Amino acid sequence: MSIDGVLKLNAQVLRGKEAAIGPGKALVLEAIVEHGSISAAGRALGMSYRRAWMLANDLNQDWREPVFEAAVGGGQKAGARLTPFGEELLTRFRAMEAAMMNSVDDADRAWFMQQLKTPEPEAPKNLVS
Amino acid sequence: MSIDGVLKLNAQVLRGKEAAIGPGKALVLEAIVEHGSISAAGRALGMSYRRAWMLANDLNQDWREPVFEAAVGGGQKAGARLTPFGEELLTRFRAMEAAMMNSVDDADRAWFMQQLKTPEPEAPKNLVS
Repeated sequence: MSIDGVLKLNAQVLRGKEAAIGPGKALVLEAIVEHGSISAAGRALGMSYRRAWMLANDLNQDWREPVFEAAVGGGQKAGARLTPFGEELLTRFRAMEAAMMNSVDDADRAWFMQQLKTPEPEAPKNLVS
Repeated sequence: MSIDGVLKLNAQVLRGKEAAIGPGKALVLEAIVEHGSISAAGRALGMSYRRAWMLANDLNQDWREPVFEAAVGGGQKAGARLTPFGEELLTRFRAMEAAMMNSVDDADRAWFMQQLKTPEPEAPKNLVS
């Protein structure tokens, strides 16, 4: 997550070397909530179905309880929804991120922004005379 | 920076898309303070001289003021030391990281650790019967 496009803070909960939850998986969970299926979540995030399914499957493997489940009454094409555990996981992760963003001292942020050189302008690709 | 090997938090100050300071560059600055030259800092961090020099050079390009300078009286093989600006940059960055680590709620941390499956044991590479 970035503040003002200048400070970038990132949180992950690791299982071994991999993120059991991090910004990408949190987005997948939010998209499942919003769109009601893994395939629709993947489309909304510009991911392949395979990629979205793998992230969702990882989520269900990394925690003691399932994070999402098939929506009731569905068959092969059923939707998916978060379990109560999955909702708590998402809520706690986003709260941790928010606290992290709030921890940045305003004076430090202002100092960094003031001391940083502005990005150099990109060279023009075409010079039309 | 990690907490208990489970939470991993990362801070960067971006200039454009690149980190003008982040964990790697902070380590380089600390190693210059400790070892007194860029080449010795690179060796201490297991980097090539070229890599350490490039990181140090980036640091001097990304901020309005120089971050390090040649130690007084040195020639080609002179040591390097942080400028007062470089010292402030390093101090503020490490303080921002420390505040970020402190922002994590103990109850959230305990919950994540409790809910996470333990890492699967690695498969043995040799089975000697």
